[in-house]
Amino acid sequence: MVQLVVRKPAKSQQPAWPRDEFERRLRAKERLYHIHHPFQVRMNAGELEPAAIRGWVANRFYYQTSIPIKDAAVMANCRDREARRLWVQRIIDHDGTGGADGGIEAWLQLGDAVGLTREELLDERHVLPGVRFAVDAYVNFARAATFEEAACSSLTELFAPTIHQRRLDNWPDVYPWIEAQGYNYFRKRLSEARRDVEHGLQVTLEHFTQRHEQEYALNILQFKLDVLWSMLDAMWMAYMNDMPPYHSCPEDA
Amino acid sequence: MVQLVVRKPAKSQQPAWPRDEFERRLRAKERLYHIHHPFQVRMNAGELEPAAIRGWVANRFYYQTSIPIKDAAVMANCRDREARRLWVQRIIDHDGTGGADGGIEAWLQLGDAVGLTREELLDERHVLPGVRFAVDAYVNFARAATFEEAACSSLTELFAPTIHQRRLDNWPDVYPWIEAQGYNYFRKRLSEARRDVEHGLQVTLEHFTQRHEQEYALNILQFKLDVLWSMLDAMWMAYMNDMPPYHSCPEDA
Repeated sequence: MVQLVVRKPAKSQQPAWPRDEFERRLRAKERLYHIHHPFQVRMNAGELEPAAIRGWVANRFYYQTSIPIKDAAVMANCRDREARRLWVQRIIDHDGTGGADGGIEAWLQLGDAVGLTREELLDERHVLPGVRFAVDAYVNFARAATFEEAACSSLTELFAPTIHQRRLDNWPDVYPWIEAQGYNYFRKRLSEARRDVEHGLQVTLEHFTQRHEQEYALNILQFKLDVLWSMLDAMWMAYMNDMPPYHSCPEDA
Repeated sequence: MVQLVVRKPAKSQQPAWPRDEFERRLRAKERLYHIHHPFQVRMNAGELEPAAIRGWVANRFYYQTSIPIKDAAVMANCRDREARRLWVQRIIDHDGTGGADGGIEAWLQLGDAVGLTREELLDERHVLPGVRFAVDAYVNFARAATFEEAACSSLTELFAPTIHQRRLDNWPDVYPWIEAQGYNYFRKRLSEARRDVEHGLQVTLEHFTQRHEQEYALNILQFKLDVLWSMLDAMWMAYMNDMPPYHSCPEDA
């Protein structure tokens, strides 16, 4: 059994926040979204070398390929058929189905557009340990969480359309060397994230109703923000600081 | 169920390494030990400000407090009574028993010696997300691993006495402000690590006998090296780079 890594506040005497105030506090977490991470800021300003862009695409691919596993773990803890009927769409969006390729395939095309082969994405050779540990923490959280806790942890999608839209707006100008078919993933997620988050938000607002539960929900969302921020910290060390793992070790004897 | 994060090589036609060659390859992993991480190098050279030393002590405490949980998970996957009789000593070493305080208490005294209260260590307020995710990856590995895989992952203790001895040799000179009772942990681990690793090494050398199994064992040890290195990467970002999580986010509205 995996342990939940998010701390539950003790029951409190404080009155619950009204639903709209709780929602406002969830949305206020956007202040800590990784859109403000220096790696993301520089990436969006066009300041990254191709090697750093490729590093980001290859590392973020580990997140992409982990998401359907995370969502399967969420469904494995959910006995509510109606909820599963909605949630399964997330798996299909990423894995694809029938005629549609899905998000993982779209990300492989982004890889191609920035000069990464499918093979080097799929074999995970570029994935940094710090990125792997952060993504695995998210997947393991979903394994141990109730459906409602997991739904709450997905609420960073509240903030995702802005980050995707900025990439669509800026990258074609600042990175003319990236081929246009690379942008399908970001375009696709604009509408998907908006739809997914409606469901996740509704579940969260309805389930966490007492004050200590609402505070717990904010902690869960903070945990997910920590995952996203830590991924970029590891990439900053490797690609901006020129301190990839083991850079300072002696040569092989 | 947690997934194992270490890749198993496919069966190979290559002959197994003789036992001494396998042991040599395990020991050669010392080249990638975190003793070579710039954070550790500067710490040992006396170049860290008190705030960075305190950051390291507080973050490393999360590792210390997770180790007995990791070892309990290891024992929970071990049906061999003789092996458990040896392994339980690790839990006792950290948690203490009867008249002896154990490693966690010794680390709290190290905290006191560098100016950290027990409360701020125990409530984990200083623990960085990247450190937490790396340590949790190690604990979760132990939950999912066989006893022999977990024993193999503990083999970084082959390299630990050197790092503890260096601290004992250098810190009193370069950090005169640290009180002497802080060093009990390092002194205590010198002998414990040497004893523990004999058992772990014997289990590993006896269990992983085919070539692809030996390569798998090297991957497991590499995973553990990744854990230790990633912890220091997160501390480097926060305390050396002055880029702690969320440093670049807008002020609270």
